[in-house]
Amino acid sequence: ASVRGQDCYVIQTTSTPVHRNLMELLILTQTLKLDSAGRITVVVPYMCYGRSDRKDQPRVPITARLVADMIQVAGADRYITMDLHAGQIQGFFSIPGDVLSGYHILKPHLLKQQQQMHNPVVLTADLGFAKEGRRYAQALNIPLVLIEKRRIDNKENAEAMTIIGDVHDRDVVLVDDEIDTGGSMVQAIQLAKLHGARDIYVVFIHPVLSSNAAERLAAQPVKEFITTNTIPIVPEKQALFGDRLTILSVGPLLAEVIKRANEGTSVGALFNE
Amino acid sequence: ASVRGQDCYVIQTTSTPVHRNLMELLILTQTLKLDSAGRITVVVPYMCYGRSDRKDQPRVPITARLVADMIQVAGADRYITMDLHAGQIQGFFSIPGDVLSGYHILKPHLLKQQQQMHNPVVLTADLGFAKEGRRYAQALNIPLVLIEKRRIDNKENAEAMTIIGDVHDRDVVLVDDEIDTGGSMVQAIQLAKLHGARDIYVVFIHPVLSSNAAERLAAQPVKEFITTNTIPIVPEKQALFGDRLTILSVGPLLAEVIKRANEGTSVGALFNE
Amino acid sequence: ASVRGQDCYVIQTTSTPVHRNLMELLILTQTLKLDSAGRITVVVPYMCYGRSDRKDQPRVPITARLVADMIQVAGADRYITMDLHAGQIQGFFSIPGDVLSGYHILKPHLLKQQQQMHNPVVLTADLGFAKEGRRYAQALNIPLVLIEKRRIDNKENAEAMTIIGDVHDRDVVLVDDEIDTGGSMVQAIQLAKLHGARDIYVVFIHPVLSSNAAERLAAQPVKEFITTNTIPIVPEKQALFGDRLTILSVGPLLAEVIKRANEGTSVGALFNE
Amino acid sequence: ASVRGQDCYVIQTTSTPVHRNLMELLILTQTLKLDSAGRITVVVPYMCYGRSDRKDQPRVPITARLVADMIQVAGADRYITMDLHAGQIQGFFSIPGDVLSGYHILKPHLLKQQQQMHNPVVLTADLGFAKEGRRYAQALNIPLVLIEKRRIDNKENAEAMTIIGDVHDRDVVLVDDEIDTGGSMVQAIQLAKLHGARDIYVVFIHPVLSSNAAERLAAQPVKEFITTNTIPIVPEKQALFGDRLTILSVGPLLAEVIKRANEGTSVGALFNE
Amino acid sequence: ASVRGQDCYVIQTTSTPVHRNLMELLILTQTLKLDSAGRITVVVPYMCYGRSDRKDQPRVPITARLVADMIQVAGADRYITMDLHAGQIQGFFSIPGDVLSGYHILKPHLLKQQQQMHNPVVLTADLGFAKEGRRYAQALNIPLVLIEKRRIDNKENAEAMTIIGDVHDRDVVLVDDEIDTGGSMVQAIQLAKLHGARDIYVVFIHPVLSSNAAERLAAQPVKEFITTNTIPIVPEKQALFGDRLTILSVGPLLAEVIKRANEGTSVGALFNE
Amino acid sequence: ASVRGQDCYVIQTTSTPVHRNLMELLILTQTLKLDSAGRITVVVPYMCYGRSDRKDQPRVPITARLVADMIQVAGADRYITMDLHAGQIQGFFSIPGDVLSGYHILKPHLLKQQQQMHNPVVLTADLGFAKEGRRYAQALNIPLVLIEKRRIDNKENAEAMTIIGDVHDRDVVLVDDEIDTGGSMVQAIQLAKLHGARDIYVVFIHPVLSSNAAERLAAQPVKEFITTNTIPIVPEKQALFGDRLTILSVGPLLAEVIKRANEGTSVGALFNE
Repeated sequence: ASVRGQDCYVIQTTSTPVHRNLMELLILTQTLKLDSAGRITVVVPYMCYGRSDRKDQPRVPITARLVADMIQVAGADRYITMDLHAGQIQGFFSIPGDVLSGYHILKPHLLKQQQQMHNPVVLTADLGFAKEGRRYAQALNIPLVLIEKRRIDNKENAEAMTIIGDVHDRDVVLVDDEIDTGGSMVQAIQLAKLHGARDIYVVFIHPVLSSNAAERLAAQPVKEFITTNTIPIVPEKQALFGDRLTILSVGPLLAEVIKRANEGTSVGALFNE
Repeated sequence: ASVRGQDCYVIQTTSTPVHRNLMELLILTQTLKLDSAGRITVVVPYMCYGRSDRKDQPRVPITARLVADMIQVAGADRYITMDLHAGQIQGFFSIPGDVLSGYHILKPHLLKQQQQMHNPVVLTADLGFAKEGRRYAQALNIPLVLIEKRRIDNKENAEAMTIIGDVHDRDVVLVDDEIDTGGSMVQAIQLAKLHGARDIYVVFIHPVLSSNAAERLAAQPVKEFITTNTIPIVPEKQALFGDRLTILSVGPLLAEVIKRANEGTSVGALFNE
Repeated sequence: ASVRGQDCYVIQTTSTPVHRNLMELLILTQTLKLDSAGRITVVVPYMCYGRSDRKDQPRVPITARLVADMIQVAGADRYITMDLHAGQIQGFFSIPGDVLSGYHILKPHLLKQQQQMHNPVVLTADLGFAKEGRRYAQALNIPLVLIEKRRIDNKENAEAMTIIGDVHDRDVVLVDDEIDTGGSMVQAIQLAKLHGARDIYVVFIHPVLSSNAAERLAAQPVKEFITTNTIPIVPEKQALFGDRLTILSVGPLLAEVIKRANEGTSVGALFNE
Repeated sequence: ASVRGQDCYVIQTTSTPVHRNLMELLILTQTLKLDSAGRITVVVPYMCYGRSDRKDQPRVPITARLVADMIQVAGADRYITMDLHAGQIQGFFSIPGDVLSGYHILKPHLLKQQQQMHNPVVLTADLGFAKEGRRYAQALNIPLVLIEKRRIDNKENAEAMTIIGDVHDRDVVLVDDEIDTGGSMVQAIQLAKLHGARDIYVVFIHPVLSSNAAERLAAQPVKEFITTNTIPIVPEKQALFGDRLTILSVGPLLAEVIKRANEGTSVGALFNE
Repeated sequence: ASVRGQDCYVIQTTSTPVHRNLMELLILTQTLKLDSAGRITVVVPYMCYGRSDRKDQPRVPITARLVADMIQVAGADRYITMDLHAGQIQGFFSIPGDVLSGYHILKPHLLKQQQQMHNPVVLTADLGFAKEGRRYAQALNIPLVLIEKRRIDNKENAEAMTIIGDVHDRDVVLVDDEIDTGGSMVQAIQLAKLHGARDIYVVFIHPVLSSNAAERLAAQPVKEFITTNTIPIVPEKQALFGDRLTILSVGPLLAEVIKRANEGTSVGALFNE
Repeated sequence: ASVRGQDCYVIQTTSTPVHRNLMELLILTQTLKLDSAGRITVVVPYMCYGRSDRKDQPRVPITARLVADMIQVAGADRYITMDLHAGQIQGFFSIPGDVLSGYHILKPHLLKQQQQMHNPVVLTADLGFAKEGRRYAQALNIPLVLIEKRRIDNKENAEAMTIIGDVHDRDVVLVDDEIDTGGSMVQAIQLAKLHGARDIYVVFIHPVLSSNAAERLAAQPVKEFITTNTIPIVPEKQALFGDRLTILSVGPLLAEVIKRANEGTSVGALFNE
C-alpha cells in the first residue's frame, strides 16, 4: 500500500540472525523513505551491538555507533528502543528517540513475587549494571549486593569473583540487562549458592540466549526466570525451562508509545517522569 | 599493529553470508578510522546487492545505494571493486573509487580458446547485459546474439524466450556478469541447444552460485565454464564441474591496482585507457 | 506571494540553454527554501546530463550525479522527472522522487497506429535501450530487433552497424529515450531502409533536437515522428516536419502526479503498478 | 594525464557565459575528485553572483551562497579568488580559501599616475564600497568623496544622486569593485563633471562589461580606465577605449599564491599582513 | 511540559555573558530536538559576534559563521533575529530565517522628534554603516553625512577622523547598529560638536554597552539616546542617562512575527515589502 | 605565524569559566581551519559537560554530544582527551581521537603510598564509577568497597547512603573521576569514618573544585589528596590543603602522545595495550 505522507513505524528486533535482521530493518526504512513516507520511526525492541559502545583499547570498534549511523543513513527520522546497554548510546544518534525501560514491566511482577521471598537482596552480576541494579533494589526496598570479577595475574581467561555484600540465607534477585551466552550469569548463580543464597530469581530484559545459553541456564538451581519478549524465544528453548520461565510482554507498552508518538502527546507522562 | 597514519586497504568480498561479510567490512573500516588510519580504501571484489540498483516499481528499495552509503558512513575514503552490475552504481558513491573489469582477465583466455571454436557467436542471456556482451563480441571479432525474455499475458511467471540473431551450427560464448541461482543461465543454455548450437562456453565474472546453482549448471551440456575468483567457490562445488571449470585469478590485477593507488600512479594506464 | 509553509512545486525543464535553465531551477529552489517554504518538489520533465551517468574511462565526470547533488544542496525535498537515461540515476539522489515514463503516454497512440502497420517490429538504435525497447515490443506484441554499433579496428570514428533480427518488408517502430544531435537515429533509419524496411515510425520521449537535428531528421524517409513535450520544440522546427510530427502532451500526467503528491495519495496506483 | 594523489588547481573565471563557465568549473572539479586527486583548489579570479549576497527583501535568493555550496558539493577542498563583492562571502564557504585583492596590483600604478594628477580625490559610486574606497584614499593620501543615491518618493526607478564631499576643480579617482552594465558608473562620471571635476580616472577590479557597457563607458570624458584581467576583455571592446585603457595582469600574483599554497608557505606574508 | 510535535520558539538574546547565553540557547535547542519537537525556531534579538563576519587578514576567525554552524548543529530548523551587523550573515545559515530591522520601530519615533529638530542631518560613525544610514536619511528626508576614520602612518592606534559633508549649525542624528564599548560613538559626538553641530540624537539598535560605555556616553552632550530592548539594560545603567534615554520595545514586533511564522502567513507583508 | 599545511594541536582545557574556554577552543580551531592548517587536533585534558551524557528523563539535554558536535563543526580532525566521564562519549564523535587515562599516572604514586597503608581498600563514592574503581583495586591488589546512595521515599533531596563491603579498621583509597562541588565526596569521607575507617586517601583525575569545594574538602580528615593537573588549581586553593595535596602532572604523557600522533607511531603501545 502507498505510504506517501504517512507516519510510518518499522518494527524489527535485531536478534539472531543479527546481520540479516539489521539489514532488513535498513532496507525497509530506505524503501519507505524513497516512497516519500511522511515520517519514519524505527521501533527496535532490542538494539544489537549495545555492548560495543566504547573503545577501551586500541583496534576496537564502536559498533553501536556504526549501527546508529546506519539507521540514520537509511533514512529514519526517529527511533524507539528499550534498555540500551548504556544510556549514553542515545548520544550516538543525532535523531530524536524514545528509550523505554522494561523495568516498568518487570517491577509489578517482582513486587508480587516479593511477597513470597525470604529476606531478599538484589544482586548484579556486572559492576557496569550497578546503577540499574540499585533501581530494582530501591523499588523492592531491599539491599543491593554486587559481584566483582577481577582478572588474575597475567592469565588470559582466569577470573576471580567476589561478592561485595551479603547473600547468606537470603533469597536473591539476580538482575542484568541481557543474557547472551549466559556464562556470567551461570557463574553468578553458582557463586551466590556457594555463599549460602536461598531461592534465586533471575531477572533480565533481553533474552538473547545464544548458542546453548538456554540449556545451561535451565540446568541451574533457579526458582524463576523473569524476562520480556523484546526478543522472541523459540518454543523449544522455552520448553527447557518448564514453568520456571515468565515472559512479560512489552507489546502493550510499545503500542501505547507508538500511539502517543503518532498523536504527539507526552511519552514521559506514561512513567510519571 | 598500529595503523596510525597508514594507507590502509580492507579486502573483503561480500558473498554469502552476505550480511555478515558486509557488516565485517563496515566494522573493520570503522575500527581503522577510529584508530586514526591515514586513508582507508575498501577493496570489494564482488559488491553485493548490485541488482537492486533502480526503483522500477513502487515499494522497492535501491539497496546498492544503501550499501554505498553504509560504506561511506563507516569511514571509507575510497573503494576498489570489480564489474558492478551497472556502471551507474559508481554514481551512488560520493567518494572516489576504481571499478575494474574482469573482462581484461577473461579476454586472453577466450582468445586462446577461440582457436578451437567453430564459427562462434557471443550470446547474452539478459538484454541489460547487451552492451557488455558487445564488448566480448568485439574482442573476439564475432557476431553478437541476444535472448529476449517476455512475460506472457497476465500470467505471473510464464515467460517466452526468443533468440534474436542466429546460433545454428555455431559454438556459443554465453556471457553474463554474475550467476546467482543460475535459472536464467540454464534456460539460455537449453534455448541455444534447441536452436542448434554446438559447443557452449559459459563466461561470467562473479560466481555467486547460490542454493543449488552449481548442481544445476554442472548438469548442462556445457563445454567450459569460465569465471574468476572474485567470490571463492568451495571445493565441493568445484568438484561438480570436473575439469570443465576454469577459474581465473583476479589477485594479480587487484595487487597491481592497490600498489598503484598507494604510490599515486595511474590505474587507467594499466588498461591503455 | 508568500510561500511560508506551502507545498511548492518548481516546474522547469533543463533543455537548451541547459546551464541557464538548470541555474534558474536551483536559484528558484533556494529562494523558496530561504522563504521558509513547507516542502519543495522540483518538477523536471527532462533532466539534463543523463548520459553522463557512469565513469567508463579515466578522466570522465559523472555529471548526472553532480546535477542531483546540486538540486539537493539548493534545498529540494523531492523531485519528479520523466524517463531518466538510466533508471539507476534515481540512486544518485538521497531525496525521494517520482520517475514517470512517457511510455504510458506513447503506448495508446502506438496501438492506434498499429492498425495500419504492415508486419511491424520494434527496433532500438542503441543496445543500452534494449530493455526499454522490449517494453514497447511487448505492448504491441511484435518482435524486437536491435542495432549493434561496433568500433572498427583502431580507427577513431569508424563504426560498423549491424542489424540483429529481421526488418525486411516490415514496418519499423524505431524507439529511443531522447534524440539529441540525431546522428545515431539517422544512421538507424538508413540502415533499416537498406535492409528493406517499409514504413518507419520514429518514437522518442525527449525531443532535445540540438544543432541541426530537426533538419536532418525531417529529410529522412520517415512516416511519423512521435514524441512528447517534455522539451518544447520551437514552431520553426516543428514546421520542418509538416504533419509527420505528433507531439503528445505530458501535462495531464504531471498535473495528476503533482495533485497526488500534494494530497499524499498513491502515484504508483496511476499505472496499476 | 593521471591526477591520482596530485595537488590540483582548477583555474576558471566565471564571466560570461556565466552559467556555462560555472558548470565547466564544477564538472572539472568533480572529475578530478572521482579520479582520486590529492587536493583540489578552485582558482576563480572573478566569482560570479557576488552581488546576490544578502536577502534584503522577501522572495530573493542568496545566489552567492548557492555558488559556494555548489563548489563544495562538486568536491573542492580549497578556493582562491579575488575581491569578493563583500568580504563576508568567505563565510559562505566551509572550506578554507584565499581571497586576494587587486588593490595590491592597482596601487603602484595609481601612485605613479598620481604624480600628474591635480588635487585629486577618491570618489565611490556606491555607499557599499565606501570602506574599500577609503583604502585607496589612504594609499594615495587624498580625501574620500562619496555619491549617495536615493529613491525619490514612490516612483519606481527615479533616483536622486548627491555628492557628499567636494570634487570641484579636482581630478577624480572613481573606484568600484566591478563594472557590469556600467549604468551607475556613467551616472557617477556625469555627476562628477557636473560638479566641476577635472580629469577622471575610473578604477575597478573586475571588467564584467556586459551588454553595451564598453560602448557607453568609452563615450565618457574619462582620462584613463584602469582595471585587471580577472575577466578577459575581447579585443573589439578593448579597441573602443583606444589607449585610455590600462589592463594590469593578476597572473603573477595568482601564480605566486598557487606556488605558496602548493608548498605550504605563508600567503599572508606576501602582503606584509 | 511535553513538546512532542509542537512548533517551538526558543527566545534568548546573546548579550553579556555572551558565552553562557549562547550555550544556554544551544542546550535548550538540543533538548527540544531530542524531545521530538515538531519544528524549532531560535529567536535571537541580538546575535553575538556579528562583527567577526569576514577574514580581512590572516589568522582571523569568522566567528559569526561558527555561531551559525553551532545553532544549526544544535538542531534549530529556523531562526529569527534583528539587524545583523552585515546582511550577508544570513548566507552563513543553511536554514531559513527572518531578519527583522529595528528601523521599523525607530522610524516613527524619529519622525515625531524631527518636528522639534533644527535643520537636521543623519551622521554615521562608520563607513560600513553608510547604506543603513542612508535608509534613515531617506525616511527623514534629510542629508546624509559620514565620518571617515583613517589610520595615521604606521602608528598603531592613531586615527584621523574626517567629516564628509556638513554638520555646522545643524541638529545631528547619529546612527549605528550597535554600541559596544562606545569608543567610536564618543569620538563621533565630539567631532560633530567640534564642527559646530547643535543638538545630537544618538540612535542605535543594540545597546551592548559593555565595560563603562554607559558612563562615558551619559557624560556626552547628547540630547537623546534612542535604542531598543534587543538587549536588556540594567536599571543602574539606565539611571545614568536620566530622562535622556528612550528604549523602544521590539516585543510586539517579535510577537507578531512569531505568530505569523506559526500560522504560515507572510512576514514580509508586515513591512509592505 | 602561518599554519598552512601544518599538523596543528590546539591545547585548551575546558574548566571554569567553561563557556569562555570552550568558545576559545572552537574559535581557535576554526581560525586554523580557515588558514588551511594541514590537520587540527584539539587537546582537551578535561572535557566539560561529561556528566550530561545521557537522557535519563524527559526534557534533559545530552550536552556532551553537543560539545562533540561543536568541536567537529569548528573543523577539528582529531581530539585527544583524558578520562571521559563515560567511555561511551567517544562514540559521540565521528572523528577519531585518543582518550588517555590518568590512571597510568596515579598508579605508580599509589603503589608507593601503599607501602605505608594499613589493610587498605578501594572505595568508590558513585556506583557509576564501580568499574573504574575495580581497576584501581586490581592494581593495588586490594578489595573494592562501594557506596550506594538511594533516594528516600518521595522526599526531594533526602538520600540514604550505604556502604557495600567493609572499611572497618582499614585505610581507605577513595576514588572518583572528578570532584566538582565536592558534596558526594565529603559525604563519602564522613560515611567511611563513621564505619571505622582509618586513614583516607582521596584520589581523582579532574580537580574541578567549583564554588567552595576546596574549603570543604580541606576541612575533612583526609591524609592525602591525590590528583592531576588536567585542570589548574589556583595557588590560593592549593594552599588550603597544605602538604596534603599531591598534584601529578599529565604534561609528559600528553607531550609523548602528541609526539606519537604527529609521527604516526602507536599510542596504544605506550600502555602495553
